[in-house]
Amino acid sequence: MALRSMRKARECWNFIRALHQGPDAAPVPQKDAVKRIFSGIQPTGIPHLGNYLGAIESWVRLQDEHDSVLYSIVDLHSITVPQDPTILRQSILDMTAALLACGINPEKSILFQQSQVSEHTQLSWILTCMVRLPRLQHLHQWKVNAIDLINKQKEVQSPLQLFLACYAPVDQVQHMELVQDLAQSFNKKYGEFFPVPKSILTSMKKVKSLRDPSAKMSKSDPDKLATVRITDSPEEIVQKFRKAMTDFTSEVTYEPASRGGVSNLVAIHAAVAGLPVEEVVRRSAGMDTARYKLVVADAVIEKFAPIKSEIEKLKMNKDHLEKVLQVGSARAKELAYPVCQEVKKLVGFL
Amino acid sequence: MALRSMRKARECWNFIRALHQGPDAAPVPQKDAVKRIFSGIQPTGIPHLGNYLGAIESWVRLQDEHDSVLYSIVDLHSITVPQDPTILRQSILDMTAALLACGINPEKSILFQQSQVSEHTQLSWILTCMVRLPRLQHLHQWKVNAIDLINKQKEVQSPLQLFLACYAPVDQVQHMELVQDLAQSFNKKYGEFFPVPKSILTSMKKVKSLRDPSAKMSKSDPDKLATVRITDSPEEIVQKFRKAMTDFTSEVTYEPASRGGVSNLVAIHAAVAGLPVEEVVRRSAGMDTARYKLVVADAVIEKFAPIKSEIEKLKMNKDHLEKVLQVGSARAKELAYPVCQEVKKLVGFL
Repeated sequence: MALRSMRKARECWNFIRALHQGPDAAPVPQKDAVKRIFSGIQPTGIPHLGNYLGAIESWVRLQDEHDSVLYSIVDLHSITVPQDPTILRQSILDMTAALLACGINPEKSILFQQSQVSEHTQLSWILTCMVRLPRLQHLHQWKVNAIDLINKQKEVQSPLQLFLACYAPVDQVQHMELVQDLAQSFNKKYGEFFPVPKSILTSMKKVKSLRDPSAKMSKSDPDKLATVRITDSPEEIVQKFRKAMTDFTSEVTYEPASRGGVSNLVAIHAAVAGLPVEEVVRRSAGMDTARYKLVVADAVIEKFAPIKSEIEKLKMNKDHLEKVLQVGSARAKELAYPVCQEVKKLVGFL
Repeated sequence: MALRSMRKARECWNFIRALHQGPDAAPVPQKDAVKRIFSGIQPTGIPHLGNYLGAIESWVRLQDEHDSVLYSIVDLHSITVPQDPTILRQSILDMTAALLACGINPEKSILFQQSQVSEHTQLSWILTCMVRLPRLQHLHQWKVNAIDLINKQKEVQSPLQLFLACYAPVDQVQHMELVQDLAQSFNKKYGEFFPVPKSILTSMKKVKSLRDPSAKMSKSDPDKLATVRITDSPEEIVQKFRKAMTDFTSEVTYEPASRGGVSNLVAIHAAVAGLPVEEVVRRSAGMDTARYKLVVADAVIEKFAPIKSEIEKLKMNKDHLEKVLQVGSARAKELAYPVCQEVKKLVGFL
């Protein structure tokens, strides 16, 4: 968060700290150039290779590159479709374990549970009230009737969380545009307050389904062989890559437009091995695709092995996972509270 | 709130009190038969005769008849249409002054500002997620397209506040039915938790426009003579009643079906004088409607005079009004917090 809003939030926060700690409490360091990173993931379902390479790996990198980084397990969004409470409760902890195992470091990132930061729900209401119909109609996915609108409730509300962020690694361009418009509308009506968030898209890798290289890898794919989950056993990973769709050419090349299947394997291989695509292709010279599939499977197994074992270890310690979320949620609340109070003042509630 | 949910909430609350006050804190008295009353009013606009006789007078009576009574100034709802922040801020205090002057006693009722109880926004999100399209389509006002749905956003969300209440004095039967359905759906999925709220409608008086007895008196009536506000000067009140629409019969009778105009005057007169309609008609025997209008105006002036003067006095003391809202909001939060925590547990967030 930047400039005026940041200063306001900080002043307000200093005031609150002073109330609690007395006037001698050290002020929050002045650091106006801070860029805040925000993203979220639903707790339902085990992350797959697409989530890992497309988002989580970037999250881990971003926490080393930025001073203020927040990642949310968006449990409030998950209930826009029916959930079993026992499974949901477990899924929140499982996702926490998965993110920690993938490298999210709670010392560097604020990892929190969305429902534990009531300010987000309040800001969501206030900001949702500012969305006017013509703006919604401008988005092609809102060119719909009431039925679609209800069905898409998840999408309608989801981008509002991003309001507390400057930069957000999302691939939902239209949602980001809506949030940018909302920030600008708010600032126009109430004075410069919200930073206008920007997307960070450049480094995100699009992993395709192993069974249909024209589609994204997805956890809801009905073909169980299409998606590699980070907790899959080595045997499952080998089986899935063995059955991966390629074409009738046996050579390994990287030609995404004409050879989607094998190019997806090359891209996955390059990403998990941390090598350029050209180097991966060079190393597989003379290998046929059947043999190459096993090489890629091995690289994925090697990449996920320590993550999988760390997940298993973390899941043994429920108290630790709960503590991480509690601390993270408290820290997120500390940041959100003064912003929420300031917004309430600006709209006329206080 | 009743039965299991009440006990659960109380246990949880006792636990929280114990945390704050130590184990010797007195438990909340066990009183399972308590009926909780809840209603709300938007802060925008000065209450008029229709609000007073139709709702506020009943609110005052209900606070003497019930042990747990909450009235909310629903500022979050008011921003579903654009508001000027300075005016909104003043309107919240003005409405507080008006309600206190009308007889809402903060020792008997919890008078609070909706935006200051974040649990309501959270419960609103959670419960809104449970509304399914077929249920909305069942309401005739949702048999609409996306435009109407957006326009009616206020109504869509508004009934959810009622969830914390057993009985609510509302005249929006469909909203109440939706809330009853939601309570039942929640209880069916998660076990008996929410009491199913009931309407209290019987004693509410429907005041008609002075200029069109077929319409309700409304603050948004474009004809300024149609609506008597509780802060109108005696001269304004006399003028409005003098211009009230009646018919070509000069006798004063109470025949709502055939003589809407004069019957509305008789009903207003009876209500403000606290007399039966028959007695009012008997006393005006031999009087023509022109003369009778002045009698009714006098009765209204007499009724509103102490309220008007009390409003003026209260508005001089902004600190007092703010304090009333702060204390009320804190008390409402004390009731809502354990309910919200319990709901979060039930849906699987905790």
